[in-house]
Amino acid sequence: MDIPASARIPASVVDKVSKKAQQTLDEVESFVQEKCIPADAVFAQQLGREPRGRFASHPKVLEDLKLEARRRGLWNLFLAKGHDGKGAGYTNLEYGLMAEQLGQSQIASEAMNCSAPDSGNMEVLEKFSNASQKKEWLAPLLDGKIRSAFLMTEPDIASSDATNIRFDIRKEGNEYVLNGSKWWSSGAGDPSCELYIVMGKTDADNPNPYRQQSVVLVPSRTPGIIVQRMLSVFGYDDAPHGHGYVTFNNVRIPASNVVLGEGRGFEIIQGRLGPGRIHHTMRCIGAAERALGLLLARIHEPTKRPFGKMLHEHGLVLSQVARARIEIDSSRLVVLNAAIKIDNGNAKLAMAEIAEAKILVPQMLGRVIDDAIQVYGGAGVSQDTPLAYMWACARTMRLVDGPDEVHLLQLGKRESRRAAGVRERLERQKELEGQLFQHYDVQKVDPLYMGWTSETKPKL
Amino acid sequence: MDIPASARIPASVVDKVSKKAQQTLDEVESFVQEKCIPADAVFAQQLGREPRGRFASHPKVLEDLKLEARRRGLWNLFLAKGHDGKGAGYTNLEYGLMAEQLGQSQIASEAMNCSAPDSGNMEVLEKFSNASQKKEWLAPLLDGKIRSAFLMTEPDIASSDATNIRFDIRKEGNEYVLNGSKWWSSGAGDPSCELYIVMGKTDADNPNPYRQQSVVLVPSRTPGIIVQRMLSVFGYDDAPHGHGYVTFNNVRIPASNVVLGEGRGFEIIQGRLGPGRIHHTMRCIGAAERALGLLLARIHEPTKRPFGKMLHEHGLVLSQVARARIEIDSSRLVVLNAAIKIDNGNAKLAMAEIAEAKILVPQMLGRVIDDAIQVYGGAGVSQDTPLAYMWACARTMRLVDGPDEVHLLQLGKRESRRAAGVRERLERQKELEGQLFQHYDVQKVDPLYMGWTSETKPKL
Amino acid sequence: MDIPASARIPASVVDKVSKKAQQTLDEVESFVQEKCIPADAVFAQQLGREPRGRFASHPKVLEDLKLEARRRGLWNLFLAKGHDGKGAGYTNLEYGLMAEQLGQSQIASEAMNCSAPDSGNMEVLEKFSNASQKKEWLAPLLDGKIRSAFLMTEPDIASSDATNIRFDIRKEGNEYVLNGSKWWSSGAGDPSCELYIVMGKTDADNPNPYRQQSVVLVPSRTPGIIVQRMLSVFGYDDAPHGHGYVTFNNVRIPASNVVLGEGRGFEIIQGRLGPGRIHHTMRCIGAAERALGLLLARIHEPTKRPFGKMLHEHGLVLSQVARARIEIDSSRLVVLNAAIKIDNGNAKLAMAEIAEAKILVPQMLGRVIDDAIQVYGGAGVSQDTPLAYMWACARTMRLVDGPDEVHLLQLGKRESRRAAGVRERLERQKELEGQLFQHYDVQKVDPLYMGWTSETKPKL
Amino acid sequence: MDIPASARIPASVVDKVSKKAQQTLDEVESFVQEKCIPADAVFAQQLGREPRGRFASHPKVLEDLKLEARRRGLWNLFLAKGHDGKGAGYTNLEYGLMAEQLGQSQIASEAMNCSAPDSGNMEVLEKFSNASQKKEWLAPLLDGKIRSAFLMTEPDIASSDATNIRFDIRKEGNEYVLNGSKWWSSGAGDPSCELYIVMGKTDADNPNPYRQQSVVLVPSRTPGIIVQRMLSVFGYDDAPHGHGYVTFNNVRIPASNVVLGEGRGFEIIQGRLGPGRIHHTMRCIGAAERALGLLLARIHEPTKRPFGKMLHEHGLVLSQVARARIEIDSSRLVVLNAAIKIDNGNAKLAMAEIAEAKILVPQMLGRVIDDAIQVYGGAGVSQDTPLAYMWACARTMRLVDGPDEVHLLQLGKRESRRAAGVRERLERQKELEGQLFQHYDVQKVDPLYMGWTSETKPKL
Repeated sequence: MDIPASARIPASVVDKVSKKAQQTLDEVESFVQEKCIPADAVFAQQLGREPRGRFASHPKVLEDLKLEARRRGLWNLFLAKGHDGKGAGYTNLEYGLMAEQLGQSQIASEAMNCSAPDSGNMEVLEKFSNASQKKEWLAPLLDGKIRSAFLMTEPDIASSDATNIRFDIRKEGNEYVLNGSKWWSSGAGDPSCELYIVMGKTDADNPNPYRQQSVVLVPSRTPGIIVQRMLSVFGYDDAPHGHGYVTFNNVRIPASNVVLGEGRGFEIIQGRLGPGRIHHTMRCIGAAERALGLLLARIHEPTKRPFGKMLHEHGLVLSQVARARIEIDSSRLVVLNAAIKIDNGNAKLAMAEIAEAKILVPQMLGRVIDDAIQVYGGAGVSQDTPLAYMWACARTMRLVDGPDEVHLLQLGKRESRRAAGVRERLERQKELEGQLFQHYDVQKVDPLYMGWTSETKPKL
Repeated sequence: MDIPASARIPASVVDKVSKKAQQTLDEVESFVQEKCIPADAVFAQQLGREPRGRFASHPKVLEDLKLEARRRGLWNLFLAKGHDGKGAGYTNLEYGLMAEQLGQSQIASEAMNCSAPDSGNMEVLEKFSNASQKKEWLAPLLDGKIRSAFLMTEPDIASSDATNIRFDIRKEGNEYVLNGSKWWSSGAGDPSCELYIVMGKTDADNPNPYRQQSVVLVPSRTPGIIVQRMLSVFGYDDAPHGHGYVTFNNVRIPASNVVLGEGRGFEIIQGRLGPGRIHHTMRCIGAAERALGLLLARIHEPTKRPFGKMLHEHGLVLSQVARARIEIDSSRLVVLNAAIKIDNGNAKLAMAEIAEAKILVPQMLGRVIDDAIQVYGGAGVSQDTPLAYMWACARTMRLVDGPDEVHLLQLGKRESRRAAGVRERLERQKELEGQLFQHYDVQKVDPLYMGWTSETKPKL
Repeated sequence: MDIPASARIPASVVDKVSKKAQQTLDEVESFVQEKCIPADAVFAQQLGREPRGRFASHPKVLEDLKLEARRRGLWNLFLAKGHDGKGAGYTNLEYGLMAEQLGQSQIASEAMNCSAPDSGNMEVLEKFSNASQKKEWLAPLLDGKIRSAFLMTEPDIASSDATNIRFDIRKEGNEYVLNGSKWWSSGAGDPSCELYIVMGKTDADNPNPYRQQSVVLVPSRTPGIIVQRMLSVFGYDDAPHGHGYVTFNNVRIPASNVVLGEGRGFEIIQGRLGPGRIHHTMRCIGAAERALGLLLARIHEPTKRPFGKMLHEHGLVLSQVARARIEIDSSRLVVLNAAIKIDNGNAKLAMAEIAEAKILVPQMLGRVIDDAIQVYGGAGVSQDTPLAYMWACARTMRLVDGPDEVHLLQLGKRESRRAAGVRERLERQKELEGQLFQHYDVQKVDPLYMGWTSETKPKL
Repeated sequence: MDIPASARIPASVVDKVSKKAQQTLDEVESFVQEKCIPADAVFAQQLGREPRGRFASHPKVLEDLKLEARRRGLWNLFLAKGHDGKGAGYTNLEYGLMAEQLGQSQIASEAMNCSAPDSGNMEVLEKFSNASQKKEWLAPLLDGKIRSAFLMTEPDIASSDATNIRFDIRKEGNEYVLNGSKWWSSGAGDPSCELYIVMGKTDADNPNPYRQQSVVLVPSRTPGIIVQRMLSVFGYDDAPHGHGYVTFNNVRIPASNVVLGEGRGFEIIQGRLGPGRIHHTMRCIGAAERALGLLLARIHEPTKRPFGKMLHEHGLVLSQVARARIEIDSSRLVVLNAAIKIDNGNAKLAMAEIAEAKILVPQMLGRVIDDAIQVYGGAGVSQDTPLAYMWACARTMRLVDGPDEVHLLQLGKRESRRAAGVRERLERQKELEGQLFQHYDVQKVDPLYMGWTSETKPKL
């Protein structure tokens, strides 16, 4: 790495990144490149091959990395300053740049206690939970003692529209009784996952569809919960955190476990999405950089000489490289712009920018990895490169938090609201144009004006 | 226009735009929207329909707009401060944002004396010409008294590679004698085009292919010059400036008309390209915004109701709107980032960023206009909307200054140079990985390791 | 032309093309290549440059070509045998292959009396008009004495849905009184266009929206008709036939001019579309072949050597050539398959196949021409190649007879009707699968089955 | 299945499919739909989860299906009639249509003894091996008693260019001694894989690079052979046949095991490719049909109602359906056209058509499956649908037998050879055009001819 990450920050945003953040960014990069990437393969081996066993232990190499990360002060970097002084205090822009580095290694995020869904869950607890809830759950999460899952998506419905949720949370005296099924509960496979943050309906009949939901805290070992099975992603199990299919059968929790209050579930998940999408998409950009790096390495392999030329001497390959460079760089600017807009005010004002990032980045990542796979040939789809697994993750990102199409429609509708103003302006311009034609005493004649009548129509 | 342009500057760059520039930006927007766009159609009528006549006069409405623009102080906005105090003093970022507004109207750039190729030519004269040359040519250009053309591209060669140039500039005593043909000489059609800035070879045998070229100043009425014909673009003649096919037959100019010195032509054109591409691409982004505005207006036309729904109620249309929004916004960030990088140092350091903008923006513009055409149906391809003409210009932008493919290859090569560093890093990581395997006493076993020999191969 | 067209017929259909048709095909090719293409430029010159004049005469070169075509028996080739023995008697497949050849030249179709909209109009008259109508209009059309237009599309409505039509045809005694506006009336500009076939509503209140329309025959010089102006396509006027904007103000015609009967307009236009789309799309394929030929010629021009290699030595260019080849060939097979399906029965059964061709071909054509433009650089967008004009026509094809999106939605709906059957089959297979699991006494266990309860959940 | 496969054969080819083949086609379809698809999941369960075990046995359900297929006469369908009367005798067109049906199920091809690489290997043996080789290997293969692998691709070289092969086959007395590594040896994992057909160099110094290779028959249990590991494809192991990484260390075989003769390896693999690619691509088309069927089923699931509408009521989804329909149908026509061209003569004459199919089909398949995944959301990437695995296979098809780019370049070069003829024709047309201009006494004037000299240049 000749040029450190801090020296590669785009010109348009670099002066908004504090010196301290730039220094941390370089430390994160170095930790990822020198410590995490070399450990990725060891982690995979230590997980073992026995399906059930892969969800029953923590590879030692990752636990060691966590110790090292804490020692280096590279811990909980995602947590904003406001958080009771506990937060690392970086802006979304600054942490976004760090998240890009994290995205280059499979295990780096967890090594620094910055991995989804824990980071988002900690933000929810920090922002919305009460002191006692914070003490019970936020503290050990910040400490990396336990892990957590966010249970929102449900099988058999279109979960991309959260009003469709069916999970039942019924009040009974001082308790809530939970019934229903959740899937794609990421993190639920981890043996240290002690907390399920669960979204469900406490008031399904409320006429306001955005007041029906509540969020409750559920200890993962409460009787009645069954992790039925783990979901795979193109054959990968993402152990040990995994993606669980979890059923709740009359699961009882104290009424005090509700977060923020009954009927406020929607509010909570909305607050969770903004920064979370910055993190996700910046990690994707890091993954894209890694894929492009691998691609570059491959096209300079001296033994690969189809048709007598090295791969990087083929124009077709070079044009792919250039397109990847353009797509990565433009995507990064989109995400960082959204991050800055969040930093300037709140995530709500940045919803269009966040949606743009959410749609653009995973598609870009998929294309870049696919190009890399193509130049690697058979090695690209096999276990011999990280590309196939990276691609599987990238593809899934186009579905996480709702498929692209949902976001496209919402963004399109939002943009479409401008139409009334545009139409007004066009009419005003038409009027002014008419005045100008009068002023200059010019007649507006169509360049192909003919004005034939039946009498004057030309004949041969 | 409810929200002024200054309030729509992307969050990531707004604090680099001075208050004065923001105010000028809003004034430019208002001038374009209230004065220029309504005048576009009048301009077209005043040009008339007679092919030769269209290149023989200046529509009155544009000359009036120029007076108004000077009165408002919206003149020569492109000229940087350094320029002897004459410049408006805006950064590339700031003027870039203004150029976006200019791009919404066909005539706005010229109305404010900011149109290509004059703006680029003035920058060349400002930067490279001597005092006497400046007095003779720069002064009247800044005053809008005359116009100019830049004669570089030649027929019958691949001009995208400037070393292919054949135009002959031979020294004879105190004179240069010019022979050869140029085409796509934009601006050469204008009756007030008095200056041709001509690139040719003074030393075709120089072993250094980048020292063979010189740039000379040629009064357009020098004997021996013939404008053979004007080139059309998808049937449009771009009158009155147009694109000329010009031949030189023993054209004689004083030796003092060379710019900067013999053999320094390459240097000059390189200095011309950076900011010029910012201007071009930002104007394109303005054109894309205009096309999207027209599209939005159309999909809200109450009479257009295919299949019983207004066009904006069709998901397919909304998704196009969203994609256009994403593509425009991401392109803008790419160009502005390049502008800032130029502002921070010099155009050379920003070459990759400029190339990204050059490739990305015209393709984006073409797609957005094409989508707009599609929702307008027949009206979109006809004279009833500005879209068909806008599309023709956009398509041509993919060829101006070299086709996309040339820029892709160059950008790909530049990126490809990183490969050595990447390969070194990957090797280092492989080494560290090996050490970790040893440290943890783990064997690196392929997940699908079989290790069958001919003896142990399984049998049914 | 080493290999004649008959030898290039795709292997899968060649045995359905009669020897006679193969011979005619080769004659058509030779006439197009040797006579029509060389005449294209002469035709353009003879049209002149005066806008109104271009619609007032017929270039001599084309009239001479018509004589020659008749002499060679290359006349009315589109007309099926059934047509009273008058037809040339070729199948849709056979004439489709000829139409491909016609599509290579701007004027070839008209030279052989096979040009739109006349060919479609003649088919309508042949199929639906009575003897007296045939005598009055069909005979001179078949003779090439007059030309005709089909007036269907209207401004200000979404004409892609024909039930939106507003044109008023009111019965008054023995007459119809016509009021309304039509545009994109192709052919209306021709000085010998004597017949307007007009679609309008005779019964706007009919509860069946497909019985409200009628088709009437209107002599183009009937009082009350004004050709307001001609529409341009990307600046091109398509003279002399052109695209008219025509208004009707109390235009009176005899009641006997209705075709087939009142309320049968829908039926008529539906019958017109099938073969017409085969002709259109096959001409497009011919245009694509011409563009690819021009592209190939360009990349072998010895003077064009960007970066020291001829263009055809650049992999990027070769891959474009290959993609064009694939797209053209696959499109041709799609159209020919639709033609054969029409030949086998009727156009109604081939509606899905025709829709596929209608959507696929113009998009393909646009891409191929665009690639050709790109390798020609400036020459590609200018008057120096036919490519820019060809592109304009191709782009318009994506809107003619309704925009692509309308056809996509209809085709999607049609395909979607299969879903019930598919769902039934999938359920049956699920059932059989269950029986097999029982039969083999195998339990269906998810590969990532975990089955943790709260008690058995692993702990670290 | 209301409409049997025979009734869905494209109109353009149906009359080339014999009644018998149509009947067999319907029987194949029924066997696949009723027997094989329901057995796919049982097969997966019977394979078990233990990595090594998955390559050590044959699931019972598949062996039973084989018996049933033989009983029904659905066995070795791929084998052409010529083959000593043993072949099923179907044309490439006919078997191609059957292969499409096979492609709908994971196990159908093997159930009918038609799976790659065995079918291709049997064709090689049939075509090129001597009687004794046939007896030893072809007979048990046709009987389904053993399986085979084709060892061609090597690690660390660009195998897409077969002249790069390094595998060493050295003659020593009456034996060949084999040394080297092969990978992507598909089928090598099967416990009943007894035969490796190996391509290597017997004469690496031969000046003719196409005479250096030979093909030899190697019993898979010969000492010195190690199956080092199996390769995965996006995490899937494709057990039990799998893709092996195999090393040869002084492996000795009798000299009589050479096929056809030393130095004739190239000839052999070329003969293998043509029909093989028809089979592969038609199976892909079957897979695409299956994916589209699954997509259709999903968009009609009543519980999936994002934004209050069923998925099939969303225009965006319907347009995807239509595009898939078009892409599948056009791809099928391309492959069948290539098949017919092979049937008409030999594979060599059909090389362009085969290459088109090879490039077009896997890309199409990838897009269709990807669309299906998208409408299934999380279920699409997980083990709950066959889509993720299908996608992994489809992606790999873009690399098998060389990456797309290699085929694009070769096809582009082939097409590019036409350029000389095209250029000649264009010149001839230019000449004829000149004669016409003379004949009509018309001057060829550019529409934008200006002809200004320095003296006549307009002034304002």
